[in-house]
Amino acid sequence: MIRSLGLATEPVHASTGVLMGLVGEGVLPSLTPLLQMEEGRAQGLNLVDRAIDFDASGSSGFGAEKLADVLDWAERLGFSALNITYPCKQAVIPLLDSLDPVAAAVGAVNTVLFTADGRVGLNTDTTGFERAFRAELDDVRRGRVVQLAAGGAGAAVADALMRLGAEELVIVDLDSDRARSLAKSVSERHGRAAVPASPDDLADLLRTVDGIVNCSPIGMHNHPGAPFDLTLLHARHWVADIVYRPLHTELLRAAAAAGCRTMHGGHMAVGQAADTFHLVTGRAPDLPRMHRHFEELIAAP
Amino acid sequence: MIRSLGLATEPVHASTGVLMGLVGEGVLPSLTPLLQMEEGRAQGLNLVDRAIDFDASGSSGFGAEKLADVLDWAERLGFSALNITYPCKQAVIPLLDSLDPVAAAVGAVNTVLFTADGRVGLNTDTTGFERAFRAELDDVRRGRVVQLAAGGAGAAVADALMRLGAEELVIVDLDSDRARSLAKSVSERHGRAAVPASPDDLADLLRTVDGIVNCSPIGMHNHPGAPFDLTLLHARHWVADIVYRPLHTELLRAAAAAGCRTMHGGHMAVGQAADTFHLVTGRAPDLPRMHRHFEELIAAP
Repeated sequence: MIRSLGLATEPVHASTGVLMGLVGEGVLPSLTPLLQMEEGRAQGLNLVDRAIDFDASGSSGFGAEKLADVLDWAERLGFSALNITYPCKQAVIPLLDSLDPVAAAVGAVNTVLFTADGRVGLNTDTTGFERAFRAELDDVRRGRVVQLAAGGAGAAVADALMRLGAEELVIVDLDSDRARSLAKSVSERHGRAAVPASPDDLADLLRTVDGIVNCSPIGMHNHPGAPFDLTLLHARHWVADIVYRPLHTELLRAAAAAGCRTMHGGHMAVGQAADTFHLVTGRAPDLPRMHRHFEELIAAP
Repeated sequence: MIRSLGLATEPVHASTGVLMGLVGEGVLPSLTPLLQMEEGRAQGLNLVDRAIDFDASGSSGFGAEKLADVLDWAERLGFSALNITYPCKQAVIPLLDSLDPVAAAVGAVNTVLFTADGRVGLNTDTTGFERAFRAELDDVRRGRVVQLAAGGAGAAVADALMRLGAEELVIVDLDSDRARSLAKSVSERHGRAAVPASPDDLADLLRTVDGIVNCSPIGMHNHPGAPFDLTLLHARHWVADIVYRPLHTELLRAAAAAGCRTMHGGHMAVGQAADTFHLVTGRAPDLPRMHRHFEELIAAP
C-alpha cells in the first residue's frame, strides 16, 4: 500500500544505517527489535531498533501523554520510523501528516515513517496477517470464516480477512456491542457480509464455516485454555491463531490432531515485522530467515 | 582512562546494537558517523551514529540552547552515547553526573556515555591524539615541542603532549592571552614547563625544538597556506598537523621534503573515533581498517 502514498521505494544504502523504535507500554520484553536488528545484520545493514517504554503507572513522568514529544524528538534525533503499540495506536493518528488507506480503514496505526513529505501512518498488523496467510494458507477456501474477538488485533485481522476474499465473516465476542460495531464497519468498507455472533452460537456456526481465527488472548501462557469446545473442530476447518506465546496453543494442537490446516501466531508476528522492515528499509526481508530468528528468540529462556 | 571511573568494559553483544549521535553546529558533513558505522558493520555489530545538527542561525528553533533537551531525549530514546562538538564541549559539562579526570583537565568533553551510573563525560580528542602519536611517532624525541595555536583543539593536544612526556611545551598563538592562559594551566597540571610564545619567536624557537604540532586551521582547504616560514624546517624536527582536509597540507609536504618524520591530521581524527568506538562498544577497534575507511571517505567526492 505504500505505493499509493508515493513514498520512496529506494532501498536504504548500507552505509546510511537505519534507526527505528518501538513505542508503547511494557514494550521492553518485545522480541520485535531483536528480530529487526538480526534481519538488518543478515543483510549487512546497520539497523538499530530501540524499545521506548512508557511507564503505565506514570510514576516516572514518562507516560503515553508524552507521545507527541516522542515523535518530535525521534524525528529530530534521526529515527527513520517508529512502531507504535498499546495504548497509542489510535492516539498517534492526529500526530501524522498522512495515513495509508489500509491503516485508515482499520482505524489504527502501528508504523510511522518519517519521510521528506512528513509523517506517514501505516498498519502492518493487518498487512502482516495478510502476508502470513498468503504464505501459509493461500489455497484454503475463504467462504465463511469465524473470528473470535473484536478488539484491536481483531480489527486488523478482520480487514485482512476481507482483503483475502472471505465471503462472509462472523465476528464472535462476549461483548456483543463490540462484535456488532466491528462487523458493521467491516461490511460497510468491503461491501460483503460481516455479522456479529455470540459465543453461544459457536456450536452451530462451526458446522458450516470454512475457517476459524482466534484473536482472543485465550491460549497464551498467562491465559491458558481454549477459546471454545475443541471437540467441535473438524478436518474441514482451517485454524489460525494470533497468540504466539506459546506458538502451539491448545487450540492449534487440537486442530492439528483433528487433521485441520493450521497457522500459528508467529506467522502474523513475523509478517508484521517483515512488512515493517520492508517499509522502513526499502529492502525485501528474507521471510524464512526471519522465521528462524523468531523461533530462536522465542525458544530462548 | 575509563577504568578510573569504574565503567563497564563488557563488550556490547552484537544482537543489542549500539546507538550513538554527534551533536553540534554544522555536523551534517562530518565523516565520523560513517566511520563509526563502517567499523561497527565490519565487526558484525548493528551500530547507528546520527548527526544531530544545531542550526547556527537559530531560525529553526533548534539551536545549541536545546543541548539539555537533546541529552534527556537521547537517553530516553535509547542512545548509548553522544559525541559533542562545537559549540557545546564546555556547555555540556554541567549536564553530566561525572567527568573523566583527563576531560576535566582539558576542560572540555567530546564524548558522553549514558551508563547505569549516570552520564559520564570524556575527551577522546586528547586521548585520540595520544593514541595516534604512540602509533606513528612513538620513537621520536619528546624534549622540546612547539605547538601552534591555543584554541579548543590546542588544549586537547597540549595535554596529550604532556602525557606523552614532552619536557617543555612552547605554545604559540597570535592571541598572547590565550597562549599564556593555556601554558599556565598545562604546566600547573603536569608540573613541567609549558610557556607561551609569540609567532615572532618562531625563527629562534625552531632552531632548538624537537617537534612541531600545528593546531591552527592554516593549511585547510578554506585556509590555504603555511602557519610559518617553511624554510625554517630541518630534518631534525618531527612535524604533526591536526588539519585533515587535505591530509597532506603545505606544512607536511615541506616537512617531508626536508626529511622530517610527519603525522597528518587523519591520525588524530581516526584516533579520536577509535577511542570513542572502544568506549561506547567495549570492543577493540581495528585501527588500520578505520584508517582505510577514513581515507576512502575523505577521497570520496
